[in-house]
Amino acid sequence: MDKRVIVLHSGGVDSTTLLYHYVRQGCEPISLTICYGQKHKKEIECARKTSKIFQVKHLEIEIPLPFSNSALLNSSIEVPKSDYTVETQKITVVPNRNMILLAYAIGFAEDLKCGYVAYAAHHNDRAVYPDCREEFFYALNVASMLGTYQNVKIEAPFISWTKGEIVRYGVSLGVPYEYTWSCYEGGEKPCGQCGTCHERRQAFEFAGVPDPLEIKHRRS
Amino acid sequence: MDKRVIVLHSGGVDSTTLLYHYVRQGCEPISLTICYGQKHKKEIECARKTSKIFQVKHLEIEIPLPFSNSALLNSSIEVPKSDYTVETQKITVVPNRNMILLAYAIGFAEDLKCGYVAYAAHHNDRAVYPDCREEFFYALNVASMLGTYQNVKIEAPFISWTKGEIVRYGVSLGVPYEYTWSCYEGGEKPCGQCGTCHERRQAFEFAGVPDPLEIKHRRS
Repeated sequence: MDKRVIVLHSGGVDSTTLLYHYVRQGCEPISLTICYGQKHKKEIECARKTSKIFQVKHLEIEIPLPFSNSALLNSSIEVPKSDYTVETQKITVVPNRNMILLAYAIGFAEDLKCGYVAYAAHHNDRAVYPDCREEFFYALNVASMLGTYQNVKIEAPFISWTKGEIVRYGVSLGVPYEYTWSCYEGGEKPCGQCGTCHERRQAFEFAGVPDPLEIKHRRS
Repeated sequence: MDKRVIVLHSGGVDSTTLLYHYVRQGCEPISLTICYGQKHKKEIECARKTSKIFQVKHLEIEIPLPFSNSALLNSSIEVPKSDYTVETQKITVVPNRNMILLAYAIGFAEDLKCGYVAYAAHHNDRAVYPDCREEFFYALNVASMLGTYQNVKIEAPFISWTKGEIVRYGVSLGVPYEYTWSCYEGGEKPCGQCGTCHERRQAFEFAGVPDPLEIKHRRS
């Protein structure tokens, strides 16, 4: 298949599974990692590592997201230590993040003559993040097709899947999850307490396999 | 009217008219100038100046647009010296520019609790720039409303107007056009040769008034 697709690749579980999904489909994915002042660089290192393992081209750019009211960007706001619920996670919303990231991905697609971009939005995020919802994705897809010479299309194959379903699928593909990072903190090992650590644990429980990242840290 | 609106304000004729339109409507516009590696800074200085004259809050950010195939960003590609036609201007297209700029404006709107963003797309640009077309604008508007907690709306009141109609309207409002810049080159005075210089001259001819910027430079 000669489908060329720019994949938004943060280095977390979902986007790494998505990138490998396109590799296994025989497409020509390009990994695009956008650094936007996240508090730590662990995820970005993972994105580089897995791009190398999958032998796909990797692009990296740094952009400003100068919005001051998100705990992911403002170090004076604490990331909530609790379950992954709407109320606890709302403070981690970065205003309009996915539209900004996708707009860049679409720009690269247009510049590099790729017909597609993809992002790993999924069902768990829809309650908290409006830009992970199907209705947003469908509308932006239309805008992208209309706003580009190549009618660039957006794909989000996991948008109605839970994170558990993504991990189960990724395990069946052989995604090396020891090289993915989820924790909102940037410590030596995952904190185990924050919303995404909880969510990751539940996803591996659902998939019925141990988390290779946990095994690695237990060993070390 | 307590309508708060983030206006994408490049410092050119169209966006400066748009900003003043909201001032005169009694809204609370905020000028947002996004610098993205244009070859010159003349427009940006104009945006600062008119924001000051209109007494509106002015935000400025710098973002990368790392796309290599546009004459506006790549100094090894020459800006075409000729009429403003699809063929001559296509090289000046920056891939997906308006979606990227609007995505930032929407992010600021969400962060600063504004319900609206606005941009000065107009009819003359629709042939060359797909992201200045009504169908793109309508689709992105839906994505923006769905992707934000505040259902941020996009306005583009000039989208079906010609540039001449914008200038005629702006003259009736009293927009100080001597503090706007159009020329793609960043010389001491407008080159008079490039596509936007041609287009600006035609717009003032249509409006039936002399261009105050030309008068200023003729005097100096």
